[in-house]
Amino acid sequence: MQRPSVRAAGLVLCTFCYLLVGAAVFDALESEAESGRQRLLVQKRGALRRKFGFSPEDYSELERLERQAEPHRAGRQWKFAGSFYFAITVITTIGYGHAAPGTDSSKVFCLFYALLGIPLTLVTFQSLGERLNALVRRLLLAAKRCLGLRRPRVSTENLVVAGLLACAATLALGAFAFTFFHVYYYCFITLTTIGFGDFVALHSGEALQRKPPYVAFSFVYILLGLTVISAFLNLVVLRFLAASADWPERAARRPSQ
Amino acid sequence: MQRPSVRAAGLVLCTFCYLLVGAAVFDALESEAESGRQRLLVQKRGALRRKFGFSPEDYSELERLERQAEPHRAGRQWKFAGSFYFAITVITTIGYGHAAPGTDSSKVFCLFYALLGIPLTLVTFQSLGERLNALVRRLLLAAKRCLGLRRPRVSTENLVVAGLLACAATLALGAFAFTFFHVYYYCFITLTTIGFGDFVALHSGEALQRKPPYVAFSFVYILLGLTVISAFLNLVVLRFLAASADWPERAARRPSQ
Ligand SMILES: [K+]
Ligand SMILES: [K+]
Repeated sequence: MQRPSVRAAGLVLCTFCYLLVGAAVFDALESEAESGRQRLLVQKRGALRRKFGFSPEDYSELERLERQAEPHRAGRQWKFAGSFYFAITVITTIGYGHAAPGTDSSKVFCLFYALLGIPLTLVTFQSLGERLNALVRRLLLAAKRCLGLRRPRVSTENLVVAGLLACAATLALGAFAFTFFHVYYYCFITLTTIGFGDFVALHSGEALQRKPPYVAFSFVYILLGLTVISAFLNLVVLRFLAASADWPERAARRPSQ
Repeated sequence: MQRPSVRAAGLVLCTFCYLLVGAAVFDALESEAESGRQRLLVQKRGALRRKFGFSPEDYSELERLERQAEPHRAGRQWKFAGSFYFAITVITTIGYGHAAPGTDSSKVFCLFYALLGIPLTLVTFQSLGERLNALVRRLLLAAKRCLGLRRPRVSTENLVVAGLLACAATLALGAFAFTFFHVYYYCFITLTTIGFGDFVALHSGEALQRKPPYVAFSFVYILLGLTVISAFLNLVVLRFLAASADWPERAARRPSQ
């Protein structure tokens, strides 16, 4: 077997084991709590049914109604600010799903919008991230010169440390500014573009309509935060991916191997 | 201004305009439908309130109950199969959010799990994708030889066309196999790792417990599908990102520029 194939097989095995470990831990941590919640729910539901004398049909009608009401509780999601927020979640692939296209025409538009928008965003953030790294490199160089170093050099290790600090600062800023409970968790889930949608900024008290400065801050935070993360990825992951890629034209160009 | 900075500024401007266009279109496509849904909801809610004589407190209690009941409707989410599914959505950053960690300890675990798992997955899929491209290259070469070409060559353009066909076939296979309505849309939203969570495989009729073959197919589909997409990204996007990155050590190594 060729070396890249061995490497790929090893990585697949690692990832699979990692999934198994994750599944076991999440099972252990959540399974019990889930059972408890479910028991409590059955009790409460029974109590309500007895109190009002619902028929099963009444109850399922109520359920349906509540499911439909869920997105409306946060105010209107598809005015311009909300649509802009939605567009951000599409092209960054955050995809909270706090609002998802409801009409078929907007589903079709969403497909083509993402098809062009995701690569554009990827390239934009990588380009911005690379510029940010260049800026940090210059700042560090200037700082080292100020400190009196004769022949100042900024190593990649220096940049990685600066990048880690910037990522931590981005999380801390978010945690400081957003006013809901599990803020670190929210910022992390957002900036990794996982986007569970269990916590969503601007998704309470009709914030999209009523709090323009908060809306602006959230958009800027998400976009600048992703730039910082991109700078870090550009520094660490992209370089590693590119180095391990087996492109014939680059292999030919390499002097010795 | 340096050339890379001009490029970055141009890309930012493009992305921002793209967001504005998206916001305008989604607003136009969804805003009307949203108003309609909201009006209907208010009517229905009024009718139910009159029928049962709810007090406002009763009604908000009912609402709370329904929101809690929502995740349980799909069966237990945190047994092993469900936890495995959840782990897949974390490390691939799909993040449907059909289940999100409920306890604080599992939130903390989720952070560290993602911190290690996302880079691992990125590298694994890129490595697998690169292997897949190499395999396709060999197959195309063999096919050309069979067709009697003297000095068969497989160009990058050939591979890109094959990649596009493979992506389309992956979508079509998914649409054929999953039995819910908007299947193309679901497969697309999944394989781009947007993951709105408006359609989620295995999320009806307690499928996680009752349909093991369907569960297995879904997991394999998501992971293999992402491999095909990775192969395509490796071919097109990664190469472009790496080529446009401004790494000093590579610039020094380049023969002329
Ligand atoms: K998501
Ligand atoms: K996502």
